[in-house]
Amino acid sequence: MEAVVLEKVHELKIRDIDLPMEVGPHDVRIAVHTVGICGSDVHYYQHGAIGPFVVREPMVMGHEASGTVVEVGSAVHHLQVGDRVCMEPGIPDADSKAARLGMYNLDPAVRFWATPPVHGCLMPYVVHPATFTYKLPNSISFAEGAMVEPLAVGMHAAVKARIKPGDLAVVLGAGTIGMLTALAALAGGCSQVVITDVQQPKLDLAAKLGPITPVNVTKQNLVEVVHELTDGWGADIVFEASGNERSAASVFDALCPGGCVVFIGMPAAPVTLDIVAAQAKEAHIETIFRYAHVYPRALALMGSGKIDVKPLITDTFEFKDSIAAFDYAGHMRPESVKIQIVLPQTR
Amino acid sequence: MEAVVLEKVHELKIRDIDLPMEVGPHDVRIAVHTVGICGSDVHYYQHGAIGPFVVREPMVMGHEASGTVVEVGSAVHHLQVGDRVCMEPGIPDADSKAARLGMYNLDPAVRFWATPPVHGCLMPYVVHPATFTYKLPNSISFAEGAMVEPLAVGMHAAVKARIKPGDLAVVLGAGTIGMLTALAALAGGCSQVVITDVQQPKLDLAAKLGPITPVNVTKQNLVEVVHELTDGWGADIVFEASGNERSAASVFDALCPGGCVVFIGMPAAPVTLDIVAAQAKEAHIETIFRYAHVYPRALALMGSGKIDVKPLITDTFEFKDSIAAFDYAGHMRPESVKIQIVLPQTR
Amino acid sequence: MEAVVLEKVHELKIRDIDLPMEVGPHDVRIAVHTVGICGSDVHYYQHGAIGPFVVREPMVMGHEASGTVVEVGSAVHHLQVGDRVCMEPGIPDADSKAARLGMYNLDPAVRFWATPPVHGCLMPYVVHPATFTYKLPNSISFAEGAMVEPLAVGMHAAVKARIKPGDLAVVLGAGTIGMLTALAALAGGCSQVVITDVQQPKLDLAAKLGPITPVNVTKQNLVEVVHELTDGWGADIVFEASGNERSAASVFDALCPGGCVVFIGMPAAPVTLDIVAAQAKEAHIETIFRYAHVYPRALALMGSGKIDVKPLITDTFEFKDSIAAFDYAGHMRPESVKIQIVLPQTR
Amino acid sequence: MEAVVLEKVHELKIRDIDLPMEVGPHDVRIAVHTVGICGSDVHYYQHGAIGPFVVREPMVMGHEASGTVVEVGSAVHHLQVGDRVCMEPGIPDADSKAARLGMYNLDPAVRFWATPPVHGCLMPYVVHPATFTYKLPNSISFAEGAMVEPLAVGMHAAVKARIKPGDLAVVLGAGTIGMLTALAALAGGCSQVVITDVQQPKLDLAAKLGPITPVNVTKQNLVEVVHELTDGWGADIVFEASGNERSAASVFDALCPGGCVVFIGMPAAPVTLDIVAAQAKEAHIETIFRYAHVYPRALALMGSGKIDVKPLITDTFEFKDSIAAFDYAGHMRPESVKIQIVLPQTR
Repeated sequence: MEAVVLEKVHELKIRDIDLPMEVGPHDVRIAVHTVGICGSDVHYYQHGAIGPFVVREPMVMGHEASGTVVEVGSAVHHLQVGDRVCMEPGIPDADSKAARLGMYNLDPAVRFWATPPVHGCLMPYVVHPATFTYKLPNSISFAEGAMVEPLAVGMHAAVKARIKPGDLAVVLGAGTIGMLTALAALAGGCSQVVITDVQQPKLDLAAKLGPITPVNVTKQNLVEVVHELTDGWGADIVFEASGNERSAASVFDALCPGGCVVFIGMPAAPVTLDIVAAQAKEAHIETIFRYAHVYPRALALMGSGKIDVKPLITDTFEFKDSIAAFDYAGHMRPESVKIQIVLPQTR
Repeated sequence: MEAVVLEKVHELKIRDIDLPMEVGPHDVRIAVHTVGICGSDVHYYQHGAIGPFVVREPMVMGHEASGTVVEVGSAVHHLQVGDRVCMEPGIPDADSKAARLGMYNLDPAVRFWATPPVHGCLMPYVVHPATFTYKLPNSISFAEGAMVEPLAVGMHAAVKARIKPGDLAVVLGAGTIGMLTALAALAGGCSQVVITDVQQPKLDLAAKLGPITPVNVTKQNLVEVVHELTDGWGADIVFEASGNERSAASVFDALCPGGCVVFIGMPAAPVTLDIVAAQAKEAHIETIFRYAHVYPRALALMGSGKIDVKPLITDTFEFKDSIAAFDYAGHMRPESVKIQIVLPQTR
Repeated sequence: MEAVVLEKVHELKIRDIDLPMEVGPHDVRIAVHTVGICGSDVHYYQHGAIGPFVVREPMVMGHEASGTVVEVGSAVHHLQVGDRVCMEPGIPDADSKAARLGMYNLDPAVRFWATPPVHGCLMPYVVHPATFTYKLPNSISFAEGAMVEPLAVGMHAAVKARIKPGDLAVVLGAGTIGMLTALAALAGGCSQVVITDVQQPKLDLAAKLGPITPVNVTKQNLVEVVHELTDGWGADIVFEASGNERSAASVFDALCPGGCVVFIGMPAAPVTLDIVAAQAKEAHIETIFRYAHVYPRALALMGSGKIDVKPLITDTFEFKDSIAAFDYAGHMRPESVKIQIVLPQTR
Repeated sequence: MEAVVLEKVHELKIRDIDLPMEVGPHDVRIAVHTVGICGSDVHYYQHGAIGPFVVREPMVMGHEASGTVVEVGSAVHHLQVGDRVCMEPGIPDADSKAARLGMYNLDPAVRFWATPPVHGCLMPYVVHPATFTYKLPNSISFAEGAMVEPLAVGMHAAVKARIKPGDLAVVLGAGTIGMLTALAALAGGCSQVVITDVQQPKLDLAAKLGPITPVNVTKQNLVEVVHELTDGWGADIVFEASGNERSAASVFDALCPGGCVVFIGMPAAPVTLDIVAAQAKEAHIETIFRYAHVYPRALALMGSGKIDVKPLITDTFEFKDSIAAFDYAGHMRPESVKIQIVLPQTR
């Protein structure tokens, strides 16, 4: 079976790989249709590691995927052959303490696609636990299905923020995750979102996605914009989605008294926070790691039309051009948001 | 000044009334534009009392109002003459224990328009505390502004339900409050709503308001519909908005494990609840009384286009036809939802 | 192996039974030391069924147990031979939707000791999943260890009530569960508890357990007592632990505005609730089913001395007198609270 | 009337001062009995300012006070002459947005004793709003009553932490606030507390206050201690009560997955936080500013015997020795915790 394999840093190949494909009683086998490229994929390609996760052996790339069920384990009831699905890439030990408490994403033993040494899904077939395989609503395309994974990050942030209907949220950073967080926040109860970035094309796109006010922080003052919109009270929620340390240090500036900050982006270095400024507002702060329990939420909101991710799918490559796709992803124009790879469907 | 006055049960008049109109430092005076008729108004007209609240002296009707600020107290800063506003009809003692704890709606000393012995607002001018007077967004008409009061009930229910993004909610009862609760739930994060009633025209209207599935309980089985939509899991939230005792007794039937019930409607008699059935799902149950802190939320969601109440304003009368409006409200066709009275604006 | 077997309604025997005793990789084998008798055991003995759970085949009794680990599965790391332990009697499917969400007690597939058709633990040895087997602190005896199961019910109620430090709680019903709920509430943050019953000896015992005010509802008025203690504000939390329908119907009477009711007792019939009275206080209501995640909490509070269950262990029988123990449990004096059976430890 | 007046930095005097003493309808006049010295008092004495609050005019010191009601305003019902009371030193505008939302401590217009330019209470009489004056339980002395103010800080932290019964908490810093936070956490539901400091005498005292494990961070490793106590899982809650930047930067080290951090201490400089380490545990973080709504909670727990602050009152001075008391407070031995001043009661 051909797969997109990261041999080692800087060396990506489409080549045959032999992987176990037995379908256990609780598993399904899926013909992969679409796989999105994530910043983490690009980072492994360019740097060979993310923090403690180091690529030491060849690894199949990709973890944002949709496809079609082609085989079903004997104990699986909620899926059948032919179902169009998307797959949650992290599989915990259901019996771990974290998983039992409902926080399966925090189980240290979780196995996550394309995180060394676990293979990803950028290949024609994968075997996956049925529990973490979700049927797509009829109205949702394979391309949209492969967007559920990054949307899940924003959705998890929206859940953690405990949005109250009508809240105003700020999203710092208009990259893929920032925009998806904005969509999740709006679908999740916010009346409007203010989004910041330094790249005007990203802000121009974001402004078309709903009641979203773009703020180019190279030219505008976020606090002034938010105070204008809230009679000086401040934003109910600030989502930090840039991962930039200066942005992360500014999270309390536009926040209202009693407001909530959610750290989504992972800053490369520790962040200097003004605790006293946070205390003056009794800010409460949530930090998130991937997501848990949100695939059904994302699919429900996409299925009922409350979230439309299509405008964010800007570039599509064929499987045979996967190397080019990764190379482009590493140096993409600011107009690009999500790059996807489509696998051949006749096989 | 002419007002719509309930002299006693069954006797409603448009007649002069002399009321104090001094504007204190924290007050505003408002030229009333539109006043909606609420079921409670009709109930006082027909029965002369609601529970312990008995009409013993002539009382001005009306508590769902919008208008224009015509005079501003000396200590008021956030409003000015000419501002288009809506008014929250219940004024608590800010220093009561309930108010200090943030639950001003539970202050027993609250003074609420058109609840004996407090006069309502169906007259050309009212004086009101600026704190409970809210500016309308430019995009919102006076008619919509007068809908904020009933919407606030549904909005408060939506806040109390602690909706998580993507939840599926059931609303029992497609009257005005039921439909507004459905809109609040969708704007507040639900992916879809299932609404029930026995009147098909109400359900037909509700179905046009968003991703709302109507269920006519004289013909369909709610539990089956919900299980079909949720793979047998059940609804995350059940809003009881009918006030009907049989409906109230059924709130656990379609609920999911760990789900939330909100009692909005006020049943005329005690309700027989199957506590063991609730326990098997560890249902948690919220009960609400009017609302608190939600006018800004309702206005924010209307202002950004996430809630559109216009389809629910079905009948409009002139002030001089107020008696006819109340008489119609008592016997309205099922196609009617909200009846409003518009006051003459040249005075 | 000899066990206490309910052959059918009214027929209890100590007799040999042959049960599988293989220790799987994630299991432990335990020499049972002490087993408490629960009201449900007595109910199966006297009536042969509880709701849908009917005794159709001989069933070993008992689910409140402590003992000593005598064999450890190959994959078990946190326990070893010789450890003194107590066991959580309900085993869910870790991969069920409810369990994944952290509500394993709501998994319909849960297998619970001495709930037909699942055998209990009133016998010399049991095999149990290590995950649901908890080490006893050194300071805790086997007798106390066998109290963790009923305490877990009160502890779960205390967790669900989201007690704030200093809250005043009412517990309706001073049976075993009521008293354990009072202890859990005090250890969990309440400043004081008011407990009600109709049996004076139970109230006399309860009053010795901590800052607990007994109220004999045949002679005293609960609402007056609570208003006296709270300057007329009401109780922050009302735990319904009697299962009595009249008691259950009274839960809102002594509650404060914004207060919380927890239904622990399972009334034999539906309960008539005054929803409007609940709404006037915006009561929120929790319902509980057994417990989840609370064994470690109960053990931590017992281990640090914040909960002392010893005064509630009033009657102890030897294993050979188990039938007499069950007969006594069905007709015990009001001074008795918990009856336990101790197994012979040389075998 | 003689008062302890800070004339300017370094210059403290006992001298006559003429202050308005009219008792409004909602006020009481109180004969002050005991006043504790807070670190902030000492800081104003030594430095003349705390952040933006600068002593520009003579200011009466003191904000931790108890006393006896000697006069009652016409509209006051819950207090009478002779009542023994303690006073909450911060008075908000009840009509501010923050106060209406239940967060009166965040109202920027709050007037707080001994925070420039507002006078404190270290003088024979004060006039205070009855709403913020609380009756002492009979069992509580004036000395303990004057401890409610610093206890309120720990109590507020304990409320914000949403302790679940049986949680294990770490308190960083065994100063007055750290020890009171430990007591609040234990009374509020924690099974045990681990407290850290560098001063052994403080740790020795803390260890006598309940199930509290002292950790001298100059000799011991906090993470190891916590992992030993929790089977490697970590602490449910970490209270940062030292205000030390290095301590504040370490808050995630001993925390469990999904755990809660509360920042109580106010670090003099911004703190460098490892956001990615927080994210790996999905830490949620609360920041607090003074307190709100907790005086009744503190008094309830002291009154029922669940909190005993007496061991922390280590040094008592007479009013005429107030300057000596402040001088000692600035250079106290590590055995000292709370220093109080008692006013002459015959006047």
